[in-house]
Amino acid sequence: MQTAIENLNAMGASARHSGRLLARVPSAVKDAALLRIADSLASRRDEVLSANEKDIANGKRDGLSAAVLGRLVLDAKKLEAMARDVRSVAALPDPTAETFDSRVLSNGLKVAKRRVPLGVLGVIYESRPNVTIDISALCLKSGNAVILRGGKEAIHSNTALARIVKESMTASGVPADAVQFIESTDRALVGHLLEMSEYIDLIIPRGGADLVRRVAAEAKMPAITGGVGVCHIYVDRVADIEKAVRIAFTAKTSAPYACNAVDTLLVHAAIAPAFLPKIAAEMSRGGVTLHCDRRALTVLGASAARNAKVAPATDADWGQEFLALTASVKIVDSIDEAIAHIDKFGSGHTEAIVTEDYTSANRFLDEVDSGVVVVNASTRFNDGAQLGLGAEVAISTNKMHARGPMGLKELTSYKWTVLGSGQSR
Amino acid sequence: MQTAIENLNAMGASARHSGRLLARVPSAVKDAALLRIADSLASRRDEVLSANEKDIANGKRDGLSAAVLGRLVLDAKKLEAMARDVRSVAALPDPTAETFDSRVLSNGLKVAKRRVPLGVLGVIYESRPNVTIDISALCLKSGNAVILRGGKEAIHSNTALARIVKESMTASGVPADAVQFIESTDRALVGHLLEMSEYIDLIIPRGGADLVRRVAAEAKMPAITGGVGVCHIYVDRVADIEKAVRIAFTAKTSAPYACNAVDTLLVHAAIAPAFLPKIAAEMSRGGVTLHCDRRALTVLGASAARNAKVAPATDADWGQEFLALTASVKIVDSIDEAIAHIDKFGSGHTEAIVTEDYTSANRFLDEVDSGVVVVNASTRFNDGAQLGLGAEVAISTNKMHARGPMGLKELTSYKWTVLGSGQSR
Repeated sequence: MQTAIENLNAMGASARHSGRLLARVPSAVKDAALLRIADSLASRRDEVLSANEKDIANGKRDGLSAAVLGRLVLDAKKLEAMARDVRSVAALPDPTAETFDSRVLSNGLKVAKRRVPLGVLGVIYESRPNVTIDISALCLKSGNAVILRGGKEAIHSNTALARIVKESMTASGVPADAVQFIESTDRALVGHLLEMSEYIDLIIPRGGADLVRRVAAEAKMPAITGGVGVCHIYVDRVADIEKAVRIAFTAKTSAPYACNAVDTLLVHAAIAPAFLPKIAAEMSRGGVTLHCDRRALTVLGASAARNAKVAPATDADWGQEFLALTASVKIVDSIDEAIAHIDKFGSGHTEAIVTEDYTSANRFLDEVDSGVVVVNASTRFNDGAQLGLGAEVAISTNKMHARGPMGLKELTSYKWTVLGSGQSR
Repeated sequence: MQTAIENLNAMGASARHSGRLLARVPSAVKDAALLRIADSLASRRDEVLSANEKDIANGKRDGLSAAVLGRLVLDAKKLEAMARDVRSVAALPDPTAETFDSRVLSNGLKVAKRRVPLGVLGVIYESRPNVTIDISALCLKSGNAVILRGGKEAIHSNTALARIVKESMTASGVPADAVQFIESTDRALVGHLLEMSEYIDLIIPRGGADLVRRVAAEAKMPAITGGVGVCHIYVDRVADIEKAVRIAFTAKTSAPYACNAVDTLLVHAAIAPAFLPKIAAEMSRGGVTLHCDRRALTVLGASAARNAKVAPATDADWGQEFLALTASVKIVDSIDEAIAHIDKFGSGHTEAIVTEDYTSANRFLDEVDSGVVVVNASTRFNDGAQLGLGAEVAISTNKMHARGPMGLKELTSYKWTVLGSGQSR
């Protein structure tokens, strides 16, 4: 363990040093490295897939669930998608080339803010190997060093992908030690990683609620809190029923394990008789179980009793992130009640309203305090790629620094530059 | 103590609730409240000054130093300056009226970021009563609630000022409970304040290094680290000696207790024989003691030996925030050595270069990683009012969220708004 900690410290020092060098690499050189990573994901496909086969074999042996194995498995199509992500990051403007808020003060001082990398990021993630590529690409482009700690179940895949990243960087003349990948799967190392405030400027947990809570509690450096999405859709008194059904249905079924999938439907009492039977039928066809409050059950009436996919809600259904084909349903008497429910039970991730009413739409936008607030569209648009960021390192539910999907700009800080000609106070 | 903690929790809940109301108050109403505060600082001058006299009398009885009493004492001129600050905050644009990064995606979604208040701030500060007014004004304008905890030595002054703020808010129809002032001077309350993450979104310590360290270590909510400025001026090989002397001299003497006062002069060996005798003579006239490294002492030679205001530097002189009429002096052989020294000993607050060399100026701007980096001007320009922010709540040496002086914009977060017409994934 002592040696492992020393190794981790050495990685931290190396990341710190290489990050400073990376911060001064011209944009064109960084972009060339990114394109080389994308090309290598195709040309070295067999190397990655055979590493991935080892993880899959081990995963089956260890009895991993079909869901985890599904996230873990790689194929040519997934590698192509990763390469596409890397190319789209390469195509975005370099955030550290930006100067903003510039002005000339009355004493002649020229003041501006210059965007700069944060420094060294630490990222702790779980079973999806594409995170190794996405995060490396975003960090490389934004001039940040990164220490990657992937899940044990994906160790062979991640090691192969990190090797491709680092070799592509070296071949492009970019300091490869700016990307550090922890090959040891010793769980105790996470505890030390969270203490390394000397070497890590920001730590990002990408995983379940337990990991996020642990990082928030233990990290000695700033941490992004996020990824836990208790997402609500409020179907207003005056709403387009077809839109509401399509939005609610796809927001649950298109990726039930995603943090931006809907968890709770809040339905205005006036529209419930028209909306609830339709959504219940649709959700049932999609394999979704609805946990309904007493009033919703009454509205659904006899049809609900015949439908095995409807069950009475308990208190535990409010504020619950289901990560499964389950959603809860509650009837409310007003938009105020809907907003109050979200305020009490939401996690500040994503909330949507479906409405044709101008005032309701505006009130929802004004009064709901979440990272992403949506009118007449799915909660699942809270996603870096969907919102035009190319990719994302995390979805923040913090209000400090960055909120919602974090892309390149969110991996930067700034420094003030003041150009004078001898001014003093 | 139990009652005091319950009171504090009640203040937190009240701040949270009133902050939500304040966030929806129109800009014009907030500005009217600010102007009323400014007017009341004049019309209720006697009330404030007589409260201040009590603090001064108590301070003298308790043997406070002249420096502390100087920061504590109020007069008509200081009250006018406070009123001017409040009026300048009123004149700035409302940061929460801003929408930015807006775009229309290819699927028709209209995406934008809307600036929103952070929520509830906690501010712990020491002896300057003007902080009560500055912070209240910035929070009111930016739609944030605030819990103020001032120093015991200024309790009567701060109570009177907070009363003016709250009564002006009420008279203007703004929820006055958005400003909460802790009247109890029980020191144990600070510990509880740092635990109130349910009610406080951001805690800001404005005080000495001990307070900043305690808040960083104990706060359960995000905290601004700042205020500790180990500031450097590097006098380059080719520099205008007159400018260098004026900048270095005023950066030390115009406010020796300020965090942006210079602490260490790094002097290129080639310019030292021309620069050092002049700055030593000037500093000596200003009452400043220079702690010089061996090489600087050699350059100063016999004149230094005759001058009681020059002493040999020890290791403790590098990385030291003097907050006094003292500065350290070190000779370096290159800009690289200067930057490496700053990197090792700086606090990321403010650093300046004095140079006539284009490449040196650019290298310093590129490679020095501090909140404010200055060319040919004083470090003392790292100040919210000086840099055009109206006032400041703090000077951040963090790289997350905000860096350098924090004004209105730095007291905000944003939410993404997504306007659709039925889109789903």
